[in-house]
Amino acid sequence: MVCFGWVSDLFHLPLDPNSSVPLYRQMAEGIERLIREGTIQSGDRLPPTRQLASQLGLNRTTVAAAYSTLEKAGLIRGHIGRGSFVAGQPAPSSRNTTSGNASRDESTRPPEYPVSRNPMPPQPAANIEISFASSRPSSDTFPLQAFRRVAKEAIESPDAAEILQLGSAHGFQPLRRFLLESARDSGIAGPADDLLITNGCQQALDLLARIFIGHKTPVAVEDPVYHGLIRVFERAGAELIPVPVDADGMNIAALETVLERQHPKMLVITPSFQNPTGATLSLAKRRRVVELARRHGVLLVENDIYSELRYHGEALPALKALDEGGGTILLRSYSKILFPGLRVGWVIGPRAIIAQLAEAKQISDLHSDQLSQAVLLRFTESGELQKHFEKTLAAGAERLAAALDACREFLPPGATFTRPEGGMNLWVELPAPLTAARLLTEAQQHGVDFLPGIYFSPRGDHARGLRISFGGLAPDEIRRGLKILGECAARELGENPTLAAYEAAAVLV
Amino acid sequence: MVCFGWVSDLFHLPLDPNSSVPLYRQMAEGIERLIREGTIQSGDRLPPTRQLASQLGLNRTTVAAAYSTLEKAGLIRGHIGRGSFVAGQPAPSSRNTTSGNASRDESTRPPEYPVSRNPMPPQPAANIEISFASSRPSSDTFPLQAFRRVAKEAIESPDAAEILQLGSAHGFQPLRRFLLESARDSGIAGPADDLLITNGCQQALDLLARIFIGHKTPVAVEDPVYHGLIRVFERAGAELIPVPVDADGMNIAALETVLERQHPKMLVITPSFQNPTGATLSLAKRRRVVELARRHGVLLVENDIYSELRYHGEALPALKALDEGGGTILLRSYSKILFPGLRVGWVIGPRAIIAQLAEAKQISDLHSDQLSQAVLLRFTESGELQKHFEKTLAAGAERLAAALDACREFLPPGATFTRPEGGMNLWVELPAPLTAARLLTEAQQHGVDFLPGIYFSPRGDHARGLRISFGGLAPDEIRRGLKILGECAARELGENPTLAAYEAAAVLV
Repeated sequence: MVCFGWVSDLFHLPLDPNSSVPLYRQMAEGIERLIREGTIQSGDRLPPTRQLASQLGLNRTTVAAAYSTLEKAGLIRGHIGRGSFVAGQPAPSSRNTTSGNASRDESTRPPEYPVSRNPMPPQPAANIEISFASSRPSSDTFPLQAFRRVAKEAIESPDAAEILQLGSAHGFQPLRRFLLESARDSGIAGPADDLLITNGCQQALDLLARIFIGHKTPVAVEDPVYHGLIRVFERAGAELIPVPVDADGMNIAALETVLERQHPKMLVITPSFQNPTGATLSLAKRRRVVELARRHGVLLVENDIYSELRYHGEALPALKALDEGGGTILLRSYSKILFPGLRVGWVIGPRAIIAQLAEAKQISDLHSDQLSQAVLLRFTESGELQKHFEKTLAAGAERLAAALDACREFLPPGATFTRPEGGMNLWVELPAPLTAARLLTEAQQHGVDFLPGIYFSPRGDHARGLRISFGGLAPDEIRRGLKILGECAARELGENPTLAAYEAAAVLV
Repeated sequence: MVCFGWVSDLFHLPLDPNSSVPLYRQMAEGIERLIREGTIQSGDRLPPTRQLASQLGLNRTTVAAAYSTLEKAGLIRGHIGRGSFVAGQPAPSSRNTTSGNASRDESTRPPEYPVSRNPMPPQPAANIEISFASSRPSSDTFPLQAFRRVAKEAIESPDAAEILQLGSAHGFQPLRRFLLESARDSGIAGPADDLLITNGCQQALDLLARIFIGHKTPVAVEDPVYHGLIRVFERAGAELIPVPVDADGMNIAALETVLERQHPKMLVITPSFQNPTGATLSLAKRRRVVELARRHGVLLVENDIYSELRYHGEALPALKALDEGGGTILLRSYSKILFPGLRVGWVIGPRAIIAQLAEAKQISDLHSDQLSQAVLLRFTESGELQKHFEKTLAAGAERLAAALDACREFLPPGATFTRPEGGMNLWVELPAPLTAARLLTEAQQHGVDFLPGIYFSPRGDHARGLRISFGGLAPDEIRRGLKILGECAARELGENPTLAAYEAAAVLV
């Protein structure tokens, strides 16, 4: 399986610490075997040594030694700044290239078409029945009938020729105007704000990274945090400074320390139903974050794609609405509330920043696709979005309740989990010594998938954490999946007599 | 007017070299006036000093001095690496902030909504009747009826839920498979090649830049060349090495010298109907380019968005098809042959490179919008694309003929122009001392727009060159527009008695 740009198969290498064969050589042989079997192939990227070492509980030098052995055997190739890649097949004559007497095989077999393995987003293995691995709405709940009617209206409309012609980097003008007026009416955008349409929030993060992030630019982020955010900022050169997330959102004392000592240039925060924890920043903390950001002159980026998915409790104002200075940059999107396959999100912020983002957008891809923008505008204006919302919130409440009930019932003693009031995700911490990687191996064999905590860690830790994305599953699937997870965890823990007593996680309820 | 991320209004500042007021001060006062009138506004980016100096025929230090004066007056603000931006309005009390006794006005007026001025792509001024400024098909020739029928089929299809769900970074699987199979059938893609869908070719260039270009990476490009290419590579840090373009495409002797002496990492080339010259690389030169690229180990990128728009002469094979080694990277798109507003292009190249591009794509925006991908697939498979092609080629031939006839008839003596056999663009060189910037000022007053050569120059020259994009205009508009251009040029030249005799441009017919 290829996740996040590198193969995750290496996380399950069988290693025997009691063997007379050194660990690095066991590892090199295991990877060679994966290459020979075709499980990982030429061009595949191996995990960074740090991540792999952390997942396997090894020293980083062990992993580096294994990679070095494979590189000498011509099986992998390292590229500075980009990591290590599978370079070819082991020589057929030698069953054990990495054990010695390597002979390079120059006749590297070209891969067969079609290339079925898809590096991203993570696809469940063939036998996966229930996947908690993707934070997205279920296709079953798509308002298909309304989509078809509305899309046909957009296509039939006299605007069709305008939709099909080259557009503006700022976005399809009617949608842009509608979204900006709505944001003004609801007090989110001020008179000095402007709006840019992006290909979902991921592109908004990417454009922000292009403009504001350079080599070693310090950026404060939640910990744990959405893996796509880690990747986009790390690729841009940022030095991510993790700030722990409590039950009521980012830990403010920790944030203050970070702001005072490390002077981040940017603070990125998901105040509502944060991915992956589901945590929501309280009103008092929201005010404090805005105030601290202003006082320390840090650029505040509010990643706000889940806030409308509140199933219980009272709605809270966006940071952008609380920020009277107006400097906050707000990211929103249609992808979590409607159709992820239509890539339409937007950024609201000070006009000068939006102008820079629009310039970066034009360089990136000229402008966003206009057909989906026109369809989504019509979907919103026609009232269909509001109707769909009511159903979404009812369905979401059921899913959330099913997930929380099942966590209570099935997770092993010592496990902790968050209790969100909305969104699509919650976070589980497993009791030591069980790691998420170990549980995943077992769970996948029983048809259940999830994303281990390591993906959400700016520093490569959270080995015992995992994200449960319940938004795309029916209540009975959620229940069944968590029951299997609980059984797998119990088995793993039962086999290991050193199970530590329950320890409350410091930063999460 | 805002073009390419910076305001171009400064290109037409009235400066009097015989005045007792120093040029830098005239310039500062002129810019202050533009700010006061609201022609340029807070957040607008000023042209780089090099470009502005070249356009106005001034020394760069003069421009730098003017900017410095404005910065001291608080009217503009410089950001290292990003250029200078308008920062605020002149103090109302002082009519002449830049002439002395400046008093900062803190109550900067926020811009009014809606923000009507659109930094990109360049929008013609309000009075423009005929614009040669954009290389895109005409909305009038869009096959709207077929689009509506085909789009409705896609929307009604059982695939709708798949289209709307989160997809793969590689692209919508049915379209990706179709395009790759077609490329294999036509001998363009080999067994070791893979394919990635992008948001048009601009994103493909951007992803290539992300992977291969770092600080001062040498990249060989045509000169003149598509402005979007200059911008994306320069932003990534590339050092662009210009290689002149002859009537039959890139000058091979110059290319050889560049390859031998400057060791570029990448060579980007548009072999058919190159933008902006319309030049096409001959078959012999194509073979030579492929051979040279292989011999020098340079990554060959073939930007091939116009090749299907051949109105006369024989079709030539793609570089990718001639490259038996298979290393060439080919970029194609639907935007020039069908609908620019649907952002769908694709890259074909070696599997390991496509895997890296897909990873960069996922970081950029997860994946391309799927609705347009599904519609364009159906458009192609249904045979509608082929039908539309026949009409497009007939219409294109008429437009090209009209453009060439009108150039012959109306351009002033001493002007030269290219004679493409397809595509959407041709290139004009004006006789000295007339510059394209000077002609543009005059032409815009008479309702005609075009892009001056400076935008297409990797080194900020081509002051006498200009691009005529005829693809989006009807034959009578083309004729009328070029007649007006010819008249404007004659007037400008007539007023200037120092008109040099006809000099053939070295690199262009």
